Amino acid sequence: MSQNSEYNKVDYIEICEVGPRDGLQNEEKLLTVDQKVELIEEVVAAGAKIIEVGSFVHPKAVPQMADTDEVARKLKRFDGVEYRALIMNLKGVERAEANGIMKAKLTVSASRAHSLSNLNKTPEEAVRGFAEVANFAANKGIVLSGAISTGFGYPNEGIIPIEDIYPIIDSYLEIGVTELSLSDTTGMANPQQVYDYAKAVKEKYPQILWNLHFHNTRGMGLANVVAGMQAGITRFDACFGGLGGCPFAPGASGNIATEDVVHMVNAMGVRTDYDLDKLITLAKKVQDYVGREVSSFILKAGKSLV
Amino acid sequence: MSQNSEYNKVDYIEICEVGPRDGLQNEEKLLTVDQKVELIEEVVAAGAKIIEVGSFVHPKAVPQMADTDEVARKLKRFDGVEYRALIMNLKGVERAEANGIMKAKLTVSASRAHSLSNLNKTPEEAVRGFAEVANFAANKGIVLSGAISTGFGYPNEGIIPIEDIYPIIDSYLEIGVTELSLSDTTGMANPQQVYDYAKAVKEKYPQILWNLHFHNTRGMGLANVVAGMQAGITRFDACFGGLGGCPFAPGASGNIATEDVVHMVNAMGVRTDYDLDKLITLAKKVQDYVGREVSSFILKAGKSLV
Repeated sequence: MSQNSEYNKVDYIEICEVGPRDGLQNEEKLLTVDQKVELIEEVVAAGAKIIEVGSFVHPKAVPQMADTDEVARKLKRFDGVEYRALIMNLKGVERAEANGIMKAKLTVSASRAHSLSNLNKTPEEAVRGFAEVANFAANKGIVLSGAISTGFGYPNEGIIPIEDIYPIIDSYLEIGVTELSLSDTTGMANPQQVYDYAKAVKEKYPQILWNLHFHNTRGMGLANVVAGMQAGITRFDACFGGLGGCPFAPGASGNIATEDVVHMVNAMGVRTDYDLDKLITLAKKVQDYVGREVSSFILKAGKSLV
Repeated sequence: MSQNSEYNKVDYIEICEVGPRDGLQNEEKLLTVDQKVELIEEVVAAGAKIIEVGSFVHPKAVPQMADTDEVARKLKRFDGVEYRALIMNLKGVERAEANGIMKAKLTVSASRAHSLSNLNKTPEEAVRGFAEVANFAANKGIVLSGAISTGFGYPNEGIIPIEDIYPIIDSYLEIGVTELSLSDTTGMANPQQVYDYAKAVKEKYPQILWNLHFHNTRGMGLANVVAGMQAGITRFDACFGGLGGCPFAPGASGNIATEDVVHMVNAMGVRTDYDLDKLITLAKKVQDYVGREVSSFILKAGKSLV
């Protein structure tokens, strides 16, 4: 396997495991606190350095995440491992701090129509509305990251032009957030677009630590990871077992599976921190716990090379 | 959508529909001759210019293809549309000729171990064994193409080195075959390997018309199509509904779905001859006929942009 070829110059990627949050929040079956803690600690044992452990949002909004406080308290801490949680407001960051989660992720929708109908705010106004959260976080030593969801497209609205992304990034910078994720929440991104957008934001905002987040809704998930690497991105979200779905397409595939990403990039000569065999064992357990056939490829097909 | 960017210089691809052969031959449910003829003629109506309509092999070896003679006779012919069939020997090419199929595809396994255990011949000996077929075809005006199956890897044997592919190509050239397909029969290829192999064979053998054939066994199918385009390949096989499977991985995904490929490349600004809406309608019918949930993404999720 060639490394650092003209095709791909990236030889290592960091994969953030978002299964405990973006995966489980879309599952019908609720896991127990102990099951969640077990899965997260096994993710760490498989090599994860960044795990999104849950979200501190209103329990009625996302019942699957109602127990994030307890999960956060029960979790063992490991040197060099970052636990982060999704938050939406001051209450959320307060809960993060109270439960010892020192990294919190904000999110806004890049779709103007979506943001206005949901929050009666433009995406930039929504970000600036996080100023109070940012102050609290800074005072308490909590680091914030930001997600730009539906960053490539939104149903009905269509493709989100890159020019609409820039002011959202600027707003995040205004409140001091310098780690951002461009997220294809609805599985609409294609590799050409990913390459163009990733290259553009990376060049225009070199001070930002960039992350990409893909769903495999239309089969392009892994192609989009490669396109991201070709644009020089080295951080990607992925989800054990490929859990999750798409609210606009019932039955569609969810997040790209961590084991599928690791399997592919390993074959390409790109390193990660993960042990693929441990990930496969973990994905089997995830499948058992959620009680349905998940959309991981490697779980079904096995590795290319044994 | 940018075209001809530094990312992808290909602005058109030819997609060969292999569903009637590589798709249906892996299905448990046998379709009737009339159903096959209907599907093939709808593929043409959706824009296909090259269709693999069946195979002239021993009916006991592949019962699903036992009716290829009758299918071939019943099919309407259309200007500019090529029907081809898979053959394995002289008997096969004779049947092709008798049924008015003027394009025939040969295939050998790139795996030395596989070829020796199956045929007691090396891949090169297997190709040279087609000399009689090539003579017959030349005399009757039948054009031959050749496939190099398991061209990227084979279970147990592992990755097939590119150096093992060259003598197979040379053998095909010796018998006068100048249209070749490198086929990832077992779904083991990764995008880096596809880029490297495609680039290498294209540069070393510019006189050959190259085609790539991918399965989505490990989720890398569409990523591999993009890698092929990035290496300058403009011909790909695909299969309606993403039918087929992998004999080494029961339950795994099959061929890349024609509608998934067309959806992706259209979004990337790459043209094909297909009408995507007609392909989706066709894939639904394919799903009905085979009587199981097929692994097409677009059939489940719908197009990114309506």
